[in-house]
Amino acid sequence: MSFVRIQNISISLDGFGTGEGLAFESPFGHAGERLHEWMFATRFGRGMLGLPGGSDGVDNAFAERHETLGIGAEIMGRGKFSPQTGPWTDLGTDEEWRGWWGENPPFHTPVFVLTHHPRPSIEMEGGTVFHFVDASPQDAVAMAREAAGGRDVRIGGGPTMAREFIAAGLVDTIHLVQVPIVLGRGARLWDGLEGLETDYDVEQVASPSGVVHLTFTRRGDRG
Amino acid sequence: MSFVRIQNISISLDGFGTGEGLAFESPFGHAGERLHEWMFATRFGRGMLGLPGGSDGVDNAFAERHETLGIGAEIMGRGKFSPQTGPWTDLGTDEEWRGWWGENPPFHTPVFVLTHHPRPSIEMEGGTVFHFVDASPQDAVAMAREAAGGRDVRIGGGPTMAREFIAAGLVDTIHLVQVPIVLGRGARLWDGLEGLETDYDVEQVASPSGVVHLTFTRRGDRG
Repeated sequence: MSFVRIQNISISLDGFGTGEGLAFESPFGHAGERLHEWMFATRFGRGMLGLPGGSDGVDNAFAERHETLGIGAEIMGRGKFSPQTGPWTDLGTDEEWRGWWGENPPFHTPVFVLTHHPRPSIEMEGGTVFHFVDASPQDAVAMAREAAGGRDVRIGGGPTMAREFIAAGLVDTIHLVQVPIVLGRGARLWDGLEGLETDYDVEQVASPSGVVHLTFTRRGDRG
Repeated sequence: MSFVRIQNISISLDGFGTGEGLAFESPFGHAGERLHEWMFATRFGRGMLGLPGGSDGVDNAFAERHETLGIGAEIMGRGKFSPQTGPWTDLGTDEEWRGWWGENPPFHTPVFVLTHHPRPSIEMEGGTVFHFVDASPQDAVAMAREAAGGRDVRIGGGPTMAREFIAAGLVDTIHLVQVPIVLGRGARLWDGLEGLETDYDVEQVASPSGVVHLTFTRRGDRG
């Protein structure tokens, strides 16, 4: 049985996964790049930017799981694909929005973008195809599992959709990265998840880089 | 110069330092003992209960700093001394409330209990004297510093008063213990502390027991 996984969602000490004021020029709002500096110091993160070097320790071990062959599809919130809300205004224009990641996004699988405003799919280089679907978490997981062909499904975030999928009991493994900053405002991952530890085994592992990797593995014999 | 220190305040993953529903029979509300199990597994914590044994690793290294000779006074919120609010109803009775800690509390110094309802001081065994004062955080620190005779002042909690003293810029070093549970409700330490990391160097250290020790050391040459 394939797993439904959350990977590499960065949160502040106070649990915010994005800041306030998301916009094209500031995809994480007032948080800026601070939630993701740990990743861009790894070999995986630097490679995404076309740069050599980077650390190959515990941070990289977690970060590069994003590229594992074991993932067959991703589900992401619209807020991860684009900071726009409401009807799409770029359809059929020369400046059609194709995500933050350039022509060869780091997914290489079908990606289901949750939106109340479906639009035609977008095929990118490297195997990534963005599909835009208006679906419940349950239906989205069923759809992604089908597309994943037996491999795992990644719940890509942002934090608001991630906590909805967790609260619905749909997620088998969760990997969060706690960054030592206090954001104060934004989208908080933990809201509505009281008692999460009763369903999961939890590990906290500190990295020399200053972040803590939190992993949750669902109890029982699923998977 | 003496330090103003926070030590051994336990918080959940979502930042709550106590649960909801504080009462004489449940001093931490629905959190129960879960925030403090890590401490009662240490040599220091078992010793407080009159029990032998206990771990002597990183958890104990932090826990037993509570008994360091370097602390000369504590300031605590009324909620840490008693779950009652409003005027004291036990004054002059045979059942006068003397705190949670028995006749020889683990402070051994003057302890300033912040309350809008001052009452006569209570002298306990072992050097602890509870004083009940209606004072601002600034005035309370001045009073405690005077009483500490050059030694450090501990900000004892709970989380609500701790964050007020932190927000007022009065705290030099902070030690929190993050326990892998999601409480969902209660008193949250982080509220109002946006940008805390700009004033402090932050360390996150995972213990094999499953908790993470978070330490904040104020930048600059104070102390």
